[in-house]
Amino acid sequence: MSKNYARADIQAIAGYVPGEQLSGTVIKLNTNENPYPPSPRVGERARMFDWQQLRLYPEPTAAHLRECASRIFGLPQECILCGNGSDDLLTIALRTFVGAGEAFAFPEPSYSLYPVLADLQGARRRPIVLTQDFQLPSDLLAQAGDAKLLMLARPNAPTGNSFPKEAIRQLCRDFSGVVWIDEAYGDFAEDNCLDLVKEFSNVVVSRTFSKSYSLAGLRLGLAFGDASLVSEMNKLKDSYNTDRFAQAMGVAALEDQEYLRQSVSRVKATREKTAAALKELGCTVLPSQANFLLVRPARKAARQLFLDLRQEGLLVRHFSLPRVEEYLRVTIGTEEQMATFLQAMARLDA
Amino acid sequence: MSKNYARADIQAIAGYVPGEQLSGTVIKLNTNENPYPPSPRVGERARMFDWQQLRLYPEPTAAHLRECASRIFGLPQECILCGNGSDDLLTIALRTFVGAGEAFAFPEPSYSLYPVLADLQGARRRPIVLTQDFQLPSDLLAQAGDAKLLMLARPNAPTGNSFPKEAIRQLCRDFSGVVWIDEAYGDFAEDNCLDLVKEFSNVVVSRTFSKSYSLAGLRLGLAFGDASLVSEMNKLKDSYNTDRFAQAMGVAALEDQEYLRQSVSRVKATREKTAAALKELGCTVLPSQANFLLVRPARKAARQLFLDLRQEGLLVRHFSLPRVEEYLRVTIGTEEQMATFLQAMARLDA
Repeated sequence: MSKNYARADIQAIAGYVPGEQLSGTVIKLNTNENPYPPSPRVGERARMFDWQQLRLYPEPTAAHLRECASRIFGLPQECILCGNGSDDLLTIALRTFVGAGEAFAFPEPSYSLYPVLADLQGARRRPIVLTQDFQLPSDLLAQAGDAKLLMLARPNAPTGNSFPKEAIRQLCRDFSGVVWIDEAYGDFAEDNCLDLVKEFSNVVVSRTFSKSYSLAGLRLGLAFGDASLVSEMNKLKDSYNTDRFAQAMGVAALEDQEYLRQSVSRVKATREKTAAALKELGCTVLPSQANFLLVRPARKAARQLFLDLRQEGLLVRHFSLPRVEEYLRVTIGTEEQMATFLQAMARLDA
Repeated sequence: MSKNYARADIQAIAGYVPGEQLSGTVIKLNTNENPYPPSPRVGERARMFDWQQLRLYPEPTAAHLRECASRIFGLPQECILCGNGSDDLLTIALRTFVGAGEAFAFPEPSYSLYPVLADLQGARRRPIVLTQDFQLPSDLLAQAGDAKLLMLARPNAPTGNSFPKEAIRQLCRDFSGVVWIDEAYGDFAEDNCLDLVKEFSNVVVSRTFSKSYSLAGLRLGLAFGDASLVSEMNKLKDSYNTDRFAQAMGVAALEDQEYLRQSVSRVKATREKTAAALKELGCTVLPSQANFLLVRPARKAARQLFLDLRQEGLLVRHFSLPRVEEYLRVTIGTEEQMATFLQAMARLDA
């Protein structure tokens, strides 16, 4: 056995496992990608893109993209940080606000990356167990305690539900550390928490271009927070964390808010239709404000159904985690994809 | 004064300052970009690029790019890690191998990001002072001591010189931690250390696409090391740290090794010509194996000359750091750019 040079706590962990990226002809309902392409303006801008300029470094702080985001989201540029996907921003958050041995709080179940980020930073995990119906517990603040950072996804993943905004506002007001509201799925929800950024100096809201903007392949995310928080996080990011092409395409996507609304509407309509059809089949479907559904099969064990669907080229996500292991997480695809999925469910969940 | 939520050690530091990215008509000789465009194959691939596929996540480990790198560099895929620029890889290295409070060794002067990386990780800086002519000290190993990681740039930046390979081999053999050889400028040098990766299980060599491949705007880097090192580092990287476009363009660039050789040859020829001309002007020019020169002006103080050149739209780099503050770092541009630069030097360094 040769020597292992990694930090002992890194050796001990398994690392985050992203959803499968299979090739071949599969219907991919496993990583919450948008089934529709990005705005045609992204296409125009891509065709115009001057590849010869790739010899030059990108603008380090993505100034043009942040300027555009500032106009659209109504917050000053110095309150906006651009990340290489919102995962990059979550990593920056842990490194900025949580020292080794300090506590990092997050709901459970939630985005499975959160506990991994805690481990990678040598932070203490402080999971906050959600109620039976996946809501925030009434003693949330007491459970969070002296954690330096509390991160929650709203809408939550993989459950799909949102949390009452008033509870979030109270948390922001009373919690001693930073409250990070991960709105990766925010565009599919009924409301969002961007206004809390103006109200409180300890709040960050993050967004991603991977879901509603159909740009998962590009790696772009935005964090909105008080300028004092952003300036500290800025020290932690790689100097050139987002590339020239991504910055340019991100601007094109942001500028087409009308296309965003259309794309999101289509996904939401299909979500409601799919949820109703699954209930018809006898499945339990949790209320969702995201671009996916958490579904408990009518008859078959979730793990087996996951494998059976996979066999037929229908890729959904199954988490071997407490409480959600009875469910499948199903990304909302096109109308046609969901029809195929529903036919398979009718046949296989029997 | 409002509360600062950042870790105390983050609050205390200034962060890394990248070279200026001015807009307007300047001759940019300040961030070691390649003056020539990337391979025309990058252009072909960019025009063919299917922007609609951006809705899908990239391949998480950049498998196709690593496969291509494996063929070209003669190392198995499991010994290759792909980063969002080589800066991403350096950050991953610190986080994988150096715990908070542990020591991280690096030569001084060298890449000014190294001490910043130490601070961001809460590691102890262990600078190893280079000799008068910027060579490794004879007691290098003793100075490195029990550091978990020793990172050195070969050729070194901003000095431009290389270190004797035999000294590096001895270091790899005798040092108790990981030796990271940062070959960002390796393609412009007389030799490289890739073979040490096969020889030792504690060695990583990193490369970037930003310099020799003219792809600074894309953010791509490669690390080569024993599979055991790569698998631990893999836990630290963001799941999708490199994007679809960058992966595709990176493959196109790697496949055109003939273009790389031509581009590198042109830069090296201009480097030698520029060095000779600067010496003619009375400047001191350090021997360089990189795509830049470290130049001590003949008459004027370096800082003042930097400002005077900037005034004329000639942007070079000046570091306010011990021992290198007497010099300017000048990136090798095109023949025409260097002619303009030399004319300005003849006039201003007087």
